Amino acid sequence: MSTFGHAFRVTTYGESHCRSVGCIIDGCPPGMELTESDIQPQMTRRRPGQSSITTPRNEKDRVMIQSGTEFGITLGTPIGLIVLNEDQRPRDYGNKTMDMYPRPSHADWTYLEKYGVKASSGGGRSSARETIGRVAAGAVAEKYLKLAYGVEITAFVSSVGNIHMFPPTTEAPTPSQNPDFLKLLETIDRKTVDQFLPVRCPDEKKSEEMADYIAEYKEREDSIGGTVTCVIRNVPSGLGEPCFDKMEAELAHAMMSIPATKGFEVGSGFGGCEIPGSIHNDAFIRAPESDKSSKSGIPRPKLTTKTNNSGGIQGGITNGAPIYFRVAFKPPATIGQAQNTATYDGDGEGVLAAKGRHDPCVVPRAVPIVESMAALVIMDNLMQQIARHGARTHLASLQNRAVSTENSVDRQ
Amino acid sequence: MSTFGHAFRVTTYGESHCRSVGCIIDGCPPGMELTESDIQPQMTRRRPGQSSITTPRNEKDRVMIQSGTEFGITLGTPIGLIVLNEDQRPRDYGNKTMDMYPRPSHADWTYLEKYGVKASSGGGRSSARETIGRVAAGAVAEKYLKLAYGVEITAFVSSVGNIHMFPPTTEAPTPSQNPDFLKLLETIDRKTVDQFLPVRCPDEKKSEEMADYIAEYKEREDSIGGTVTCVIRNVPSGLGEPCFDKMEAELAHAMMSIPATKGFEVGSGFGGCEIPGSIHNDAFIRAPESDKSSKSGIPRPKLTTKTNNSGGIQGGITNGAPIYFRVAFKPPATIGQAQNTATYDGDGEGVLAAKGRHDPCVVPRAVPIVESMAALVIMDNLMQQIARHGARTHLASLQNRAVSTENSVDRQ
Amino acid sequence: MSTFGHAFRVTTYGESHCRSVGCIIDGCPPGMELTESDIQPQMTRRRPGQSSITTPRNEKDRVMIQSGTEFGITLGTPIGLIVLNEDQRPRDYGNKTMDMYPRPSHADWTYLEKYGVKASSGGGRSSARETIGRVAAGAVAEKYLKLAYGVEITAFVSSVGNIHMFPPTTEAPTPSQNPDFLKLLETIDRKTVDQFLPVRCPDEKKSEEMADYIAEYKEREDSIGGTVTCVIRNVPSGLGEPCFDKMEAELAHAMMSIPATKGFEVGSGFGGCEIPGSIHNDAFIRAPESDKSSKSGIPRPKLTTKTNNSGGIQGGITNGAPIYFRVAFKPPATIGQAQNTATYDGDGEGVLAAKGRHDPCVVPRAVPIVESMAALVIMDNLMQQIARHGARTHLASLQNRAVSTENSVDRQ
Amino acid sequence: MSTFGHAFRVTTYGESHCRSVGCIIDGCPPGMELTESDIQPQMTRRRPGQSSITTPRNEKDRVMIQSGTEFGITLGTPIGLIVLNEDQRPRDYGNKTMDMYPRPSHADWTYLEKYGVKASSGGGRSSARETIGRVAAGAVAEKYLKLAYGVEITAFVSSVGNIHMFPPTTEAPTPSQNPDFLKLLETIDRKTVDQFLPVRCPDEKKSEEMADYIAEYKEREDSIGGTVTCVIRNVPSGLGEPCFDKMEAELAHAMMSIPATKGFEVGSGFGGCEIPGSIHNDAFIRAPESDKSSKSGIPRPKLTTKTNNSGGIQGGITNGAPIYFRVAFKPPATIGQAQNTATYDGDGEGVLAAKGRHDPCVVPRAVPIVESMAALVIMDNLMQQIARHGARTHLASLQNRAVSTENSVDRQ
Repeated sequence: MSTFGHAFRVTTYGESHCRSVGCIIDGCPPGMELTESDIQPQMTRRRPGQSSITTPRNEKDRVMIQSGTEFGITLGTPIGLIVLNEDQRPRDYGNKTMDMYPRPSHADWTYLEKYGVKASSGGGRSSARETIGRVAAGAVAEKYLKLAYGVEITAFVSSVGNIHMFPPTTEAPTPSQNPDFLKLLETIDRKTVDQFLPVRCPDEKKSEEMADYIAEYKEREDSIGGTVTCVIRNVPSGLGEPCFDKMEAELAHAMMSIPATKGFEVGSGFGGCEIPGSIHNDAFIRAPESDKSSKSGIPRPKLTTKTNNSGGIQGGITNGAPIYFRVAFKPPATIGQAQNTATYDGDGEGVLAAKGRHDPCVVPRAVPIVESMAALVIMDNLMQQIARHGARTHLASLQNRAVSTENSVDRQ
Repeated sequence: MSTFGHAFRVTTYGESHCRSVGCIIDGCPPGMELTESDIQPQMTRRRPGQSSITTPRNEKDRVMIQSGTEFGITLGTPIGLIVLNEDQRPRDYGNKTMDMYPRPSHADWTYLEKYGVKASSGGGRSSARETIGRVAAGAVAEKYLKLAYGVEITAFVSSVGNIHMFPPTTEAPTPSQNPDFLKLLETIDRKTVDQFLPVRCPDEKKSEEMADYIAEYKEREDSIGGTVTCVIRNVPSGLGEPCFDKMEAELAHAMMSIPATKGFEVGSGFGGCEIPGSIHNDAFIRAPESDKSSKSGIPRPKLTTKTNNSGGIQGGITNGAPIYFRVAFKPPATIGQAQNTATYDGDGEGVLAAKGRHDPCVVPRAVPIVESMAALVIMDNLMQQIARHGARTHLASLQNRAVSTENSVDRQ
Repeated sequence: MSTFGHAFRVTTYGESHCRSVGCIIDGCPPGMELTESDIQPQMTRRRPGQSSITTPRNEKDRVMIQSGTEFGITLGTPIGLIVLNEDQRPRDYGNKTMDMYPRPSHADWTYLEKYGVKASSGGGRSSARETIGRVAAGAVAEKYLKLAYGVEITAFVSSVGNIHMFPPTTEAPTPSQNPDFLKLLETIDRKTVDQFLPVRCPDEKKSEEMADYIAEYKEREDSIGGTVTCVIRNVPSGLGEPCFDKMEAELAHAMMSIPATKGFEVGSGFGGCEIPGSIHNDAFIRAPESDKSSKSGIPRPKLTTKTNNSGGIQGGITNGAPIYFRVAFKPPATIGQAQNTATYDGDGEGVLAAKGRHDPCVVPRAVPIVESMAALVIMDNLMQQIARHGARTHLASLQNRAVSTENSVDRQ
Repeated sequence: MSTFGHAFRVTTYGESHCRSVGCIIDGCPPGMELTESDIQPQMTRRRPGQSSITTPRNEKDRVMIQSGTEFGITLGTPIGLIVLNEDQRPRDYGNKTMDMYPRPSHADWTYLEKYGVKASSGGGRSSARETIGRVAAGAVAEKYLKLAYGVEITAFVSSVGNIHMFPPTTEAPTPSQNPDFLKLLETIDRKTVDQFLPVRCPDEKKSEEMADYIAEYKEREDSIGGTVTCVIRNVPSGLGEPCFDKMEAELAHAMMSIPATKGFEVGSGFGGCEIPGSIHNDAFIRAPESDKSSKSGIPRPKLTTKTNNSGGIQGGITNGAPIYFRVAFKPPATIGQAQNTATYDGDGEGVLAAKGRHDPCVVPRAVPIVESMAALVIMDNLMQQIARHGARTHLASLQNRAVSTENSVDRQ
């Protein structure tokens, strides 16, 4: 369905050519300052038309808060968010090529199989405009996470085609074994990432290579894929709900729900399968003093790990170390090149050549979408854990139990 | 939480050392023949102690149906399934090494951070015994899927450490470009996979190499990871719920909820990011006559695709082609080797050397778990689509719409 | 939260003085004709300002479809619905009386207890404007129910204060024993009900009495309660999900979520507790031929009941007979009369006299809200049952079972 | 489905004649002492065979904890609870009378309409044994509520047939206007209620009348209904989730999901519709000092109300005053008297006379079930509110807002 989350819940609506797209956020904490200016920056980062290598569709994508705040303060009630579809233009069915042939590897045919009817223009619900609601909601979640816990979420482009920022080596079959990668995770922020526009790969040389590579594909009316890596710092420990809703399972769900994704890996990922357990295991160490409380004064965990092949998650639960993961995006399906394909009814064959605006590579624009979905997952799990932890603190403490602990979600 | 699915919903319970583990299945179609003998085979495939390279813990793992059937027929009411924990043995907290040190990369510490209390013995809820409920429920889902739609689900080990069944090449950076791989997907079944025990890699030479490789790790009290590939054939088209609950998102969620998983990729996966769109796009072709109806007489889609880089899913919705995906499993955290680590409170350091039974490599036993989670995802989405499609068929058909279609979930 | 339903799911947003109120409908069957003109009539029936006995707030309440349809046909994707708040006017906190005193029996104080912050003007989220989203969504559900199954839903005012349309008697301690009541249920429709505006009690004499009674309360700046009775005809049999989501439980949930409700009873209700089982039991009889198929050709159940004390629901599942229930609405909390009460902080006492627009009796305007919530419950349960029934029909039939049946949700 | 609750979630299974009945509780706070002895007392109160006026079926109904605790402490993981069906005896379909005729007003026919198949013996899933899982889970919720907040939940029989403990009068058309009723609510507890066994009506004279009345119905093989009133004291303020999940809506849902219920009213209820707003409104007053902190030290609200027609809920949210409501139970459908009815296929008519064990009046046994469902609702809403409130406390406080408050769910 079009709802994501349990305690912090987002429901989205909208197709490529309807009146507006938007979402309702349910469960946002009351008493938080919130205006459109908190949401717009990510909307703008997601927006098409930012450079010559992305689609020229030019929309202002101004978000408007409909409800749930008063005088700039959240009320705890549902927040309605709307963005107008300024250049909507549905059109009638006709004998146009695109009406006869489902676009290969696009959602045209499967939507028709599912619903028995489909939008006539653009991608309908499968359009990238569907992600506007996600980004708007993510910005709200992120504001809370930053204010209350100092959580920082930054995504960047880690590969385009076969150009990798951290290619696997014999010593480091996975980036989680690469010191340069780990160092970058500690400091990277959005401002830095955006200095590397249009590609958003925070490495000058690689970034240029990637830009040229994408330009080549654009020129020959083809497309290419890539990967986005995301790091989340200062996440409280204890988030994630065993057994089906492990933190990595929810992140995977969130990321693989973004259009055009083909893969997800967390921590050491696929490369980690090739490392012995004796190296892969993250030994516990005492957390450095400087880490022991967040900016807002909430205590941080007493332990951390020496290495971080786990990617900040163990047994499906966050351990307070940085969470990082990588998402694979396929080459966009809509290309200008002519393609042989079949008609909807299977009775004919023909050639389809897409007209109109489309990205040769989606990863630069995917960056804020990945960040937003990450924020939604963390926020939802945080609220669930606050309930669990809060409920526990109202019970008498278990004196005779050898082991007990303070959790980092709460101040007390 | 411990519930998976919406229309076909499973809730599990159980730790490593409690009285029993089990699950409740809610939403199973009524009127289906079902006895323990439908469930036990997958339970047995999952069971430890099947060979010298898996853990020697020897449990019979006999499943007992508690409710929801009468005279071997499902009633449509919740099905309670129980498996006794025959050798349960919780023990008191003491001064033992394992009580002082959280095991590196295990769930000991994060469970304590989350709950403020944890099971004293074994993995508690994070134990592999937690997967028993999943496998039992998956077997029920699978029975329906096979009876009604002829769905076939088979998983196998595709890599152990750096030994890959289908290693990436310049021509085929992803297995989805490898004809041998695609051919295998068409025919592989569980019986064949089990001929390659103890590793379950259906390639004689690779299988032997992998077995030797795992044995080496066992000998040096270390562990190693690997990947499991799974194919699902004869899935109806139209399954998967845009936008957050795309089929690949739900599969990713399901797979990444299995203990020890680090990555998921579907269709062309991570390798697919390196292929141009012009090659990656799957052209539509007319489905061969032989495919046009399933064994049980339900019509199959009119179109199929020439290639299958999409992995049977487009726009989050199944297209009727085989669904295939790959799951990464890390090296098990519990190893016999001594490891330096910290005490729970961070005040001490020490050396931990795990005693007891544990697998040097989990992928062979993960095979039925992957299949079971796949069955749960398909079944849940199928029931949701039956509701949607059924509701539509009761409306007058849209004569004036250029495009309409027959969906493969229903007979009519 | 602000979401209702599972397979047909509605999420609403909006306060009394924000930019707009609205909802997102997820799970609407695709391929249904739908325009604003299907929704507006119920919006207008709910609208304030329809007569001298309701609040004079004058809003046009025009609904605008944002998404989910194209060329007047539903796409199966989420339907966004918006109604502008034309005369919104939030105002700053000040020293006004209404800022110092929580209104007795209103939501002012509890909202503050819950959220720690509340809207400054009007009822905020507890305003009757919150019901706009419900009515809009209900109209969409109802359109489907009518088109596909001929379902008819009609509510009417059955009492105001102590003036009852069907007062209990010794012979009929509950209306379900009253032949006049049962006869009315068979034929009553909205057109008839609206002939009895402003009260919507379809009995000429009682209606006049009630109007006079309400007018009296208005004059003395007081308020009075009443009840609404609702009947749903032509519901398919088999709807309702044991055990927690019985049809009557979901109806009760839906009705008691409407602002100002204090009670719910179905079928014989509270009065039914006073009748012996031998009279209360509804004997089964063969359904009359004329009932055996609905307008749209879907078969109706073979049996019906001679009496209908069950109110069309047995064991939590519909039996095809008319469903009827009654909902109690308390006297509105906001009255013009001066009331003694305490300040928010409990330190002061004072007198509160509400200014502004308010209804002396809500039941006439509650009529379309009750109908809408009823439609949402039936639609959601129908779609769940279609999934269940559809899944069953794909299994081979159980030849050796003595008892089997055809279900009325499906054509086959 | 068979799941109730969101943050504290219960899933039940079991029919009248299967191996066992039981439930899984998900979301129980960790660190709470819990053994079977906390659960058994309510199980025993619910158990049949307690007196000559209830069914003689004699089961021990011993609950066994399967998981989720260790050494008598909850782990925060799912708690599996099982009760064996000691005298299970499904039997084959035959030519017996009860196989040919669906019992009037029972669930036989509707289950068949819904599922196309039904249990051959007893009520199957519609049996009163289904309530065992509810009562077991309710006992766990209740333990937490009492330990952490001092919440007290007591239900009692308030009417049998037309014998009412608090019959409506001109001065008090609803018990909420009756001082005796309000006084009883302040002190009544389970021990007192059970002194009035077998009827559980805490009024010596009325109790005897009711017992005689029920005995009469038993003698003539007939049955009679009644009502149960329940009070919940010391509930924190701020519980209940607008707008669809108002506290009264969730209570109504919970109560109307209990078998044989026909009505629900909260606070002034149906009678409250007949009182002017000026009387019905509950004026706020400062809470007495003695009330300002609960037994466990959690602060209580600053305000309370002079009267309590609201029944402790305003705008769907608890205000800290006692919550009370009344539930209507119809006369049991299964009676010994001969009844004319039709065969399943509608082709025949005949006479059905039930054999076997059945209650002439269910209200005495319904008492613990009502209490348990109430506990589940309060617990689930409490945990949701702890999340909301906890999340808010981590934000900087809103200095410039005129109105703010301390919530009673939390210590801080």
